[in-house]
Amino acid sequence: MAKTEKYAVGVDLGGTNIKIGIVSEKGNLVKHISIKTDADAGPKKVIANIIKGIELILEKNKYKIQGIGIGCPGVVSIKKGIVENAPNLPGWKNVKLGPIIKEKFGYKVHLENDANGAAIGELIFGAGKKIDSFIMVTLGTGVGGGIVFNKKIFRGEFGAAGEIGHISIDMNGPKCNCGSTGCIEAYAGNSYLKEQIRSELKNYPDSKVWQLIENDLSKVSPRIIQAAAERKDVYAKFVIERMGKQLGAALASLSNLLDISTFIIGGGVAGFGKPLFDSTRLTISERVLLPLRPRVLVIPAKLQNEAGIKGASSLVFYNN
Amino acid sequence: MAKTEKYAVGVDLGGTNIKIGIVSEKGNLVKHISIKTDADAGPKKVIANIIKGIELILEKNKYKIQGIGIGCPGVVSIKKGIVENAPNLPGWKNVKLGPIIKEKFGYKVHLENDANGAAIGELIFGAGKKIDSFIMVTLGTGVGGGIVFNKKIFRGEFGAAGEIGHISIDMNGPKCNCGSTGCIEAYAGNSYLKEQIRSELKNYPDSKVWQLIENDLSKVSPRIIQAAAERKDVYAKFVIERMGKQLGAALASLSNLLDISTFIIGGGVAGFGKPLFDSTRLTISERVLLPLRPRVLVIPAKLQNEAGIKGASSLVFYNN
Repeated sequence: MAKTEKYAVGVDLGGTNIKIGIVSEKGNLVKHISIKTDADAGPKKVIANIIKGIELILEKNKYKIQGIGIGCPGVVSIKKGIVENAPNLPGWKNVKLGPIIKEKFGYKVHLENDANGAAIGELIFGAGKKIDSFIMVTLGTGVGGGIVFNKKIFRGEFGAAGEIGHISIDMNGPKCNCGSTGCIEAYAGNSYLKEQIRSELKNYPDSKVWQLIENDLSKVSPRIIQAAAERKDVYAKFVIERMGKQLGAALASLSNLLDISTFIIGGGVAGFGKPLFDSTRLTISERVLLPLRPRVLVIPAKLQNEAGIKGASSLVFYNN
Repeated sequence: MAKTEKYAVGVDLGGTNIKIGIVSEKGNLVKHISIKTDADAGPKKVIANIIKGIELILEKNKYKIQGIGIGCPGVVSIKKGIVENAPNLPGWKNVKLGPIIKEKFGYKVHLENDANGAAIGELIFGAGKKIDSFIMVTLGTGVGGGIVFNKKIFRGEFGAAGEIGHISIDMNGPKCNCGSTGCIEAYAGNSYLKEQIRSELKNYPDSKVWQLIENDLSKVSPRIIQAAAERKDVYAKFVIERMGKQLGAALASLSNLLDISTFIIGGGVAGFGKPLFDSTRLTISERVLLPLRPRVLVIPAKLQNEAGIKGASSLVFYNN
C-alpha cells in the first residue's frame, strides 16, 4: 500500500445483506465484511446495522479515507442524501441516510441508487474506464441499468432514469410486476427466467438440465442452465440464445433512441458468458439503424461479485 | 412590428420543397415562400435553389435579421455546419451547406437535423416554452423525434439521438424499412398506416371510410380516417385508438428509460386529435413505472404547418 493512495468506504445496502468494504482509488478492495440487513426490522435497525458495520471496517484501519459511498436500492435524492423510496426495504420513505452517516463519522457521504452505483463503478474502476458513453445493464433478480453519457450519469427529470428493465419488447407480451407487459425484465429477470424454464422443461425430457437439477424443478437456476449449456445441452443453449435476442431487441431500441452503442453487461445472469454476449451483440447489430451498426459494442462488466461494494466506493471518486 | 424586435431566416429543406421564411423572436412568421427542391438534380442545384430562395426572402426586407437557421433531413454536424448524410436528398454526403450559406449572406448559419429543429421550435416558440424536459414526436411519413432535456437537445454520441420511430414495440412485429421489426414507425408512419388500413378495410364493408374514399383504396389517408372518426365510424375510431395504444407503448418504454414524462406530439397524423391523445396518454399512464404515472403529460405541438420554417428559425434564437 502506497501511503499516499486514497481510499473510500463503500456500503452496498441490499435487502438481505449489507456489504461494506474499503476500496483504493485504483479499485482494489482491501478489506470487507458482510452483515445481515434485518430489513424487516425497519429503517432504524438497518441504519444501526450500517453504522455498526462501518465502525467495524474502520477499526484500526490505516487508510486515508476520503469519504463513504452508499449504494441503495430504490429512488434516492443524491443532493440531499435521502432515500425517498426503497420497495425492498420495508418502511423506507424519505430516510435521511446520508446526513445520519455523515454526522456519525464526519466523512463526506455519497448516496446513490445501486444501479447507477454499478454503472459508476464500471466507469471509475471497471470496463468503462476508457469509454465516455455507455449503457450499464445488470442482469439479476431484476434487470437494472444506468446510462452514462460523456462520463456522467444521465438521471432524467427526477433521478429515476435508466430503468432498462422496463423497456417493453412486446406490448402484448407476458405480464411484468411493474404492471406493464413485455418488459425485458419479464423475460430476462432471474425469477421470470426460472419460471419460464420450469414450465418449458417438460417439453425437453432429454435435456441435461434434468440431471443437473436432480429432477427437482425448484433447483432450476441460471447457473444450472449455464452448466448444461457448457455440456452442449440443446435446450440450455436455446434458452441463452433466446435471452440474447430478447435483450438485444431492447438494447437496439435504446441505441436508436440515445445514439449510445456501447453496452456493459453485468450481474449473475451475465455469467451465461460468450453465448449470451454473442447473441445479444448480433441482435443489436441486426436491429439498430444502419449508421450505428459498425459501432455496436457489448462487453462484460469487470467488477463482478464486488460490483456492489466497488460501485458504492466509486461514488467517492466520481465527480458528479 | 417593433423596430427593435429581432428576426431570423428559417430554411426548411425538404425532399420536395424548400420552405423559407422570416420569423420574429416571438415566433411570428412575417414572410414566407416555397420553392421546388429539385432534389434529383443533386446538391449543387439544391444549394443554388436555397440561395435563390434566401435572396428572394431577404429582398427589400426591413427586418433586423440575426442569422439563418436550416433544418435538414438526415445526419448533420452542427458544429461544422455539414450535412453528413441525407437519405432523401440524392448525392448529399458531407455537404458543407452551413459554410456556403454563411459565405454567401454573411449571417451566422445554424444547421440542424429537421426533427431536432422541430423540437427546438416547440421549445423556443411552441408548446415547450415553459417545459424544461420533453420528448417531441412528429407523426408524418415517418415517426421522428427529439429529446429535450433541461432545455437542451440530447444528441447522443454522434448527434443521431432521438430516433423515436425506431423503438420496437414488438420484436416479432411487422418489418420496418430500417431493417428491424415492430418499430413504432412500422405502425404509425403514414405509409405503413395507409397500407394496413387498405388491407383491413375489406373486413369492414359498412365503414363510412368506403364512402369517403369513393370505394377507391388509393384515396385512403389519415385525413379520411379522421373525417370518418368524426362521423363516429367504428372502424376509424378503432384505428385511432389502436394507434394511441401502439404509440403509448413506445413512449412508456422511453419514459421509463429517460425519466422524462412530457410528450409533445405534432405532424400530420397528430391531426387525429383528442381521441389519439387520450388513447396515447392512457396507455402511457398504464404502462410506465408507478412513480412516473401522475406526471405523464401528452400535449399537441403548437407550430403545426409552420413547424418546419419556425423550427429552422428557432435555431437562431436557441443557445446551443
